[in-house]
Amino acid sequence: MPPVPEETAGLALTDRSTLRRLKERGTHERAVVEAILDEGLLCHVGVEDGDTPVVTPMAYARVGERLYLHGAPGNRTLRLLASGVPACITVTLLDALVLARSAFHHSMNYRCVMLFGSGCPVEDDDEKLLASAALLDHMAPGRSADARPPSPSELRSTLIVRFPIDEGAAKIRTGGPKDEEDDLSSAVWAGQIPFEAVARPAVPDDDLPATSVLPPYAASYPARRRRT
Amino acid sequence: MPPVPEETAGLALTDRSTLRRLKERGTHERAVVEAILDEGLLCHVGVEDGDTPVVTPMAYARVGERLYLHGAPGNRTLRLLASGVPACITVTLLDALVLARSAFHHSMNYRCVMLFGSGCPVEDDDEKLLASAALLDHMAPGRSADARPPSPSELRSTLIVRFPIDEGAAKIRTGGPKDEEDDLSSAVWAGQIPFEAVARPAVPDDDLPATSVLPPYAASYPARRRRT
Repeated sequence: MPPVPEETAGLALTDRSTLRRLKERGTHERAVVEAILDEGLLCHVGVEDGDTPVVTPMAYARVGERLYLHGAPGNRTLRLLASGVPACITVTLLDALVLARSAFHHSMNYRCVMLFGSGCPVEDDDEKLLASAALLDHMAPGRSADARPPSPSELRSTLIVRFPIDEGAAKIRTGGPKDEEDDLSSAVWAGQIPFEAVARPAVPDDDLPATSVLPPYAASYPARRRRT
Repeated sequence: MPPVPEETAGLALTDRSTLRRLKERGTHERAVVEAILDEGLLCHVGVEDGDTPVVTPMAYARVGERLYLHGAPGNRTLRLLASGVPACITVTLLDALVLARSAFHHSMNYRCVMLFGSGCPVEDDDEKLLASAALLDHMAPGRSADARPPSPSELRSTLIVRFPIDEGAAKIRTGGPKDEEDDLSSAVWAGQIPFEAVARPAVPDDDLPATSVLPPYAASYPARRRRT
């Protein structure tokens, strides 16, 4: 397995990761980036495929300063990502719709991370197992201790890609509408409609034997993923 | 305003929009594509910026066979999108985490639309107003009738981009885990943890005058965006 890179407090400032607009909404602080990555469940992976950008939703997990993504070796976006082409991986959490008095100032509250870099395939079986466990535990913390680990042939038929978390930025909008002074006396209602990704009660598989017990990470899921 | 294109029942089959893998999960049916676009609130826009793909979350609205996106004229991704470069716009709805008995078969239930094409700037004021109203009503149906419409100077300082919905596909995964036969007798719990984007009670802006009334689309929002 490759050596773990030294922890840095901030992501690299490069031409493509430097915030150009609304700088007050952006940060390169690693702790902020990691918190957003850890809360999200899906990322959107962008790579160029021939002459066309392709944006594909994928599961992911963070281990230190790396993301892991996985899929079938036939998955075209994942194969491109593994080939080391320039890529952008974005994770977005929607926090609220922001209804302003004026159409112009309608907005959304969100937290978003955009990472730039190049992926590479994970070849080492130990790192593949680590990534597989991380991907399960990102979905439901503790899950990797219960599920049957990948067999050697399953490992061979899984493409796992490592992507560095070292170039990029987080962008965050919070708070209410920012209306024009002249509109503040308007009787039009203004405010936020908060949004959350909420888990519903677990649905057991039809074929479960009577001995199967709902694990705590599935039973208590709604209380954990929901932010307070 | 440009003529409304003839309705077609399916999106175009092109090299980049033709489904290559897991074809049973994909469709080019327009009704399916439109339902996903109408339920989502955020899309992820992918364009090539220099040598790097960039994936940016944005609000959008659908009007017939077009998407509208908007933002500040200084927004780099939006400017690139408006310039007509090849783009991919993806909308993803997460429906459930799928916990299988084996690590290998863990999955997610989702509904996703990937659109390919090129955007163009909306220049006509009538179409800009139509798009602005659609963007508000996509956030909260009925909102455009209440909010102050954009002034001529606000219209000038908004970049609105039109993007065709005619090349792309929807992909959908539903149902429980698909474990190996040998794993079915395992006592490991397996099933789904359903997920929903849920609206919480509206939060009024601090500066609202006493005469302001919470409109029905904000008051009843949780019951409407949540799927049944």
